Parts: sequence; structure tokens; C-alpha cells
Amino acid sequence: MADQLILEKQKQAVKILNEKNIDMWLTFVRETGNLKDPMMDMIVGTGATWHSAFILTKSGESIAIIGSLEEPNMKTVGTYKTIIPYLKSVREDLVKTIEKINPKTIAINYSQNSSLADGLTHGVYLELVDILKDTPYVDRFVSSEEVVAALRGRKSEAEVGYIKEAIRETLLIFDQVTDFIEPGKSELDVANFVRGICREKGFELAWDEEHCPAVFSGPDTAGAHAGPTNNKIKRSHVINMDFGIKLNGYCSDLQRTWYVLKDGETEVPEPVTRGFNTILESVQKAFEAIKPGKKGWEIDEIARNYIVDKGYVEYPHGLGHQVGRVAHDGGAMLGPLWERYGNVTSLEIEKNNIFTIEPRLPINDYGIATIEEIIVVKENGAEYLSNPQKEIYVVKK
Amino acid sequence: MADQLILEKQKQAVKILNEKNIDMWLTFVRETGNLKDPMMDMIVGTGATWHSAFILTKSGESIAIIGSLEEPNMKTVGTYKTIIPYLKSVREDLVKTIEKINPKTIAINYSQNSSLADGLTHGVYLELVDILKDTPYVDRFVSSEEVVAALRGRKSEAEVGYIKEAIRETLLIFDQVTDFIEPGKSELDVANFVRGICREKGFELAWDEEHCPAVFSGPDTAGAHAGPTNNKIKRSHVINMDFGIKLNGYCSDLQRTWYVLKDGETEVPEPVTRGFNTILESVQKAFEAIKPGKKGWEIDEIARNYIVDKGYVEYPHGLGHQVGRVAHDGGAMLGPLWERYGNVTSLEIEKNNIFTIEPRLPINDYGIATIEEIIVVKENGAEYLSNPQKEIYVVKK
Repeated sequence: MADQLILEKQKQAVKILNEKNIDMWLTFVRETGNLKDPMMDMIVGTGATWHSAFILTKSGESIAIIGSLEEPNMKTVGTYKTIIPYLKSVREDLVKTIEKINPKTIAINYSQNSSLADGLTHGVYLELVDILKDTPYVDRFVSSEEVVAALRGRKSEAEVGYIKEAIRETLLIFDQVTDFIEPGKSELDVANFVRGICREKGFELAWDEEHCPAVFSGPDTAGAHAGPTNNKIKRSHVINMDFGIKLNGYCSDLQRTWYVLKDGETEVPEPVTRGFNTILESVQKAFEAIKPGKKGWEIDEIARNYIVDKGYVEYPHGLGHQVGRVAHDGGAMLGPLWERYGNVTSLEIEKNNIFTIEPRLPINDYGIATIEEIIVVKENGAEYLSNPQKEIYVVKK
Repeated sequence: MADQLILEKQKQAVKILNEKNIDMWLTFVRETGNLKDPMMDMIVGTGATWHSAFILTKSGESIAIIGSLEEPNMKTVGTYKTIIPYLKSVREDLVKTIEKINPKTIAINYSQNSSLADGLTHGVYLELVDILKDTPYVDRFVSSEEVVAALRGRKSEAEVGYIKEAIRETLLIFDQVTDFIEPGKSELDVANFVRGICREKGFELAWDEEHCPAVFSGPDTAGAHAGPTNNKIKRSHVINMDFGIKLNGYCSDLQRTWYVLKDGETEVPEPVTRGFNTILESVQKAFEAIKPGKKGWEIDEIARNYIVDKGYVEYPHGLGHQVGRVAHDGGAMLGPLWERYGNVTSLEIEKNNIFTIEPRLPINDYGIATIEEIIVVKENGAEYLSNPQKEIYVVKK
């Protein structure tokens, strides 16, 4: 099944090479057990020990030049039509193959803007330059970032299905967390509960275990991108959790927010409701504005301004990112025009892109309010893939 | 405990920077969730989302320049003395920090020879060059490969202990496999049995699940670096398995060989014994020759020539590699002077390096004979960390 998906993505890649007028796309790697080009899982489906070249061309060829010991495995995996095994050095076969294709442009995986199009290490790049130094091809490299962005971003029906399934399972776990949360338990208790469910069900985590899930309870929590701590859940805490799983190779990434009632309290206090609703409304405003052709910064600005206009500080990150084989996937991103995001927040949103929407704001004395939904971009607008949180979850225990 | 180990390795790194006369070592990364510089686990102990600089200096400073959202996490991890958080761009703080240190040489993680010293992607390299373009420092880069090779290769006592523990647990699993093997079961059955034990015991696999364990049965098996297949174990097959686990962050990597007796057969046939013993003796010859100062190709040549002199084809790979946080670790390698190994087979073997020794040869009509042992290099020679296989395991079922 996975292999079918790889062949489907290769076909899509050929289309994109034609659209972008790029003759050849070269994924050049070694020792992927130590460091794996993020495109390998999508267009190869196995690893490589020695220098290996995975080539797709505009005319639809697929060629793998690999260490001879890996030939049987490559045949079993079956994702490349032509397999060229070598014993001592990749050099000769790589030069010969490129000469035969004679490409005017060769996309290689380096990019300042996207880590997913930047799987070529500097040392392997130097090796490639050395191998091609006596040919005209060394001057024909271009970044594969446009190809990678389109290929990862434009989800096929099968890919959307996998992501939906990951989301469904994740939301079921959030429901269990709602039952589990109570004063006296720590952020780590919640995280361990969630990890336990994943182990039991055989779900991979969508990102590193240290921060997956991330759990934040109360006004003094460490904040996003920190791991859960021994910080105890108390009454009048706003709690949130950032969590995703990887299922069939595809990720979810969602956030939900809870409030723990004080003794005698029957309703969520006004500042919490106001903060939570501001998040809710900012998500909805952003959602309504998304469609193909818009740029990520335009969408980010809508949510960001809405939150600031309501008197809250702006969130110190982007509004949302794409989701796919990795939790932070694709090219275009919903985020501000800050240098740290490179050009990805000014790229156009495309049909079949899948994005998170995840603004946040601090509610003084209570904690952080944040929701993270996942949407898919259709012809005329967005559709939710997650079942959106509509009100803050109330813990009464 | 893990953090203690990171501080220990940082201290060792400072010593090595002094030994190699390198003023500053810069590990510059982004989005390590998508692609993680292999040095991060050894000298940082957590990931990074935005452009992040992890700096160690000859004078013993440790400085992390990171996205502000990751400051609380970095503090919790506690492996860097100075933490500099930024909001919009790493640029200004990185330039300022380097100007303050004013290094004559800056080691960065790129290497044509070692994938473990090549965690800097080409796009992030270009970013770094751009950030430093108006400073003299852009001309002061050197490869960190010597630093990385020394740091990964020279195991501390704690590291040797962890590897020993991983080896011990792995050999116990090999024992269970000896009981499990019988005619009619497939390579995949054996692999699934092993993976099941690992899941149950909570052991990570030392390399990708597709090939861990690798199981080869009989003369028509796919051969090294292929995954286990539906190929059934039959009488008179030579079987071998290549397998390792990761425990406390450190790996094992071992191979053992079995022979399945034919009906009525009471002894292993002569060609199988001769092939297996040739492997055994070649391992022992190599083992006896290893000591600090020797080069990897010299050791490889001893085993390789021994096998060829006995009338077998030479193995189409290196004799052995280092083992550590990854299954293929370190700088120096025991292998031939083939281009695909770069310079690592001509580096000097050092005290406290940990190597595998893993020659192989085909026994016509029976299968592949191979053993993989693990040794540690001491002042005057090598010591086995694995309990070496002394004779072929016989399956009588």
C-alpha cells in the first residue's frame, strides 16, 4: 500500500517537473540511517547506506544508482524502474546517467526556505560538485524547493484519507484526556497517560517524545515548545495540550483547551471565556479567508490582528503550518513576514493543501488559551478535517 | 543521567578543540524534527524548531542561541550555560556572539568523509554564509570531522557500559532465536519474533525496522542490506541474522550463524564447517592485529586476505565500523581503500574506540557465513565486548 502511494507521488512529481519546466530531479544521499533526506520516505520508500542517487525525470524515468549490496532490497521495494548497482564508487554511473539524460536543469534538495527541501548535506553537495566537475551539469543545479513544496503540499485523496484517520484517532485520545484530567495530577502525568495509550494502540508520535504531547497547566507553565513538567494541575487553571500521532506514515497535530472549575464555581469565569472565544473567533476568521491563491501572511494577519484588537498580545509564532508525512510539512505556511520563516509565508496557498490553524493567547492569572484545528483547502475555500472545539472543556472534578 | 553524559561529552569536546587547535565549534540547525544533525543527541540533548546555534569554545564556554519559544525547554534540558533567545531572526545574536568570541577557526558540521560530521544541510550552510557575509568569520570555517571523529570515537566509561548492556540484551535475544528457528518458518517469521521481543521489552531497534533484524536463510537469500522475506528455512540451510538494539541511547550490532541439519545428518557438513571456521579465524586474526595507531585498512586487509587465500570471494564491504549512539558510528573504520569509504579507512585507530568485526563469505549451496563481534580498543590491543560465537549453532529440529 505504501509503495502504491510512492508510485502515485512519483507520477505527481513528474507532472510538477513538467509544470515547473525542470528536466531532472536528483535526490543524492548517503548513510540515511544517520541522517535521512526528508524526501526519501515520499519518493523512495527505503534507506541507503552508500552514496545513492534517486533520479526522476520530466519524461517519467525513475532511476536509482545504489551500492550493489542494496540492489536486492531496492528490487523488493520496487519503486524505481531502473536500478544501477555499483561496487566501489557511484561516480562513473552517476556521470554516465546524467550525460544520457542531458538535463538543462537539475533540481537538488537544498533550500534556505524549507527544511523539507533541504535534505542534501553540505558535505554530500561538495561530493556531487566534485563528481560533476568536468561536466557542464555542475552549473545546472536549481533548488528543488518549488517541486518539494508542490509535491508535499498537494495531497492526493489517499493522503487526505490517512491524515483524517490520524486526526480521528487523536481526537479520541483527547476525549480520554478530558476524563483523566483532575487537580493534583501533573503535566507529566497527563503526558504519560497519553503516551501509554499510544504505546498500547501502536501509534507513533508525530514529533519527538519529549514534547509530544506538550501539556501546559496554569499561568506559570513553561509555554509552547517545552516538554511537560511536574507542574501540578490546580483549580482555576487553564490547561492545554498539543499532540499528534503518525499513522500509516501520516501525521495529526491538534490542540485543545480545558478549564478546571474552582470549588463552588459553576461557570467558567469571564476572562477565560473571553480569551477562549477570542481564539475561537480568530480561528474562524482565518478559516473563512483561506482559499487557493491567497498568501499565508494574509491569513496570519487576519487572526493576529483580531487577537491584538481584542487587547491581547500577539502570538510569537505562525498561525499554522502544513501537515503530512511530518507534522510540519509542505512549503507555504500561514505566518507573518518574519525573517525566521524565509519565503514560505509569502507563497500561494494551493488546492489540497492541509494546514493547521493554531493561534494562542495568554489569559492573565489562568494560563494559555489555544486551539489547533486542521483544514484542507478546496477550490472555493477551506473544510475542517478536525471536528472543531466549540467551547472550552470544563473539568468539574 | 543522559544530561550528565552530555555534559561529560561537552567537556571532552573542549579538550579535543584544544588538542586540534580549533577555537569554536558551531552546530547550526533548524527544524530538527524533519532532519536532525547527528551531533545534536550527543552535545545538545534536545531538538530545535527555528534556526539555532549551539556553540562550544576552546575556553569551555557553551552557548545556545535559540528561538524564544524554546527557551524554557532549553533551560529544563540544562546542557548550555548561556542561553540567548531570539524572536524574529537568529542573525543579530549569532553575529554578536561570534564577534565576541572572535575565533580564528570555526568548525562546522560538514564532511565528505563522515555522515556523522555532515549534519549541516547545504541550505542552512548558505544561510550561515549569508549571516556572516560582512564579517571575517565566513572565511574561517573548517570541517568538524576530526572533532566529531574523536568525540564519537573515544568512548567514556559510561558509554562503554551502555554499549555492553545493549550487547548483553541482544545476545539473550539471539539465544531465543536459536530455540525458535526450525524448518518451515520464514525469514520474516524470525524477524517478527525478534521485533515482538523488542516491543515487549521496550527496546528500540538499532536501525530501520525494514532491515532490523536482517535474516538470511539458504543459498538463494537476498543477501546483506535486504529485509527479511517469505523465503522459508529449509534443512541444510546456513542461516544468519544481523541485529542490534538501542538501549539508553546506545546501540549494539551483532551477527550469528546457524546450520539446520538434514534428516539423518548428525554433523555439520565439511564445506559449512570450513566456511564458518574461515570466518572465525579471520575475525580472530583481525582482532589480534588491532591496536591504537593502526589504520583501518591494515586490519581489513588481514581478514580479507585470509578469506581470499582460503579460496573464497572477498566480502563486498568493510570489515567493521564503530558503534555508539548510532549503529554505524565514529570516524575511523575498518575497511578497504575504496572511494566509497572516503578517508575513514585510513584514519588511525584510537584507544577506547569500539568496532564491529564482521567479515562474510558465501558457502556454495548452503548460504552465507558471517559473524559480527564487537570489540573495544585498549592501550595494547582489543578486548571483546560481545561473547564471541565459537562454533556454528546447530538446529536439530
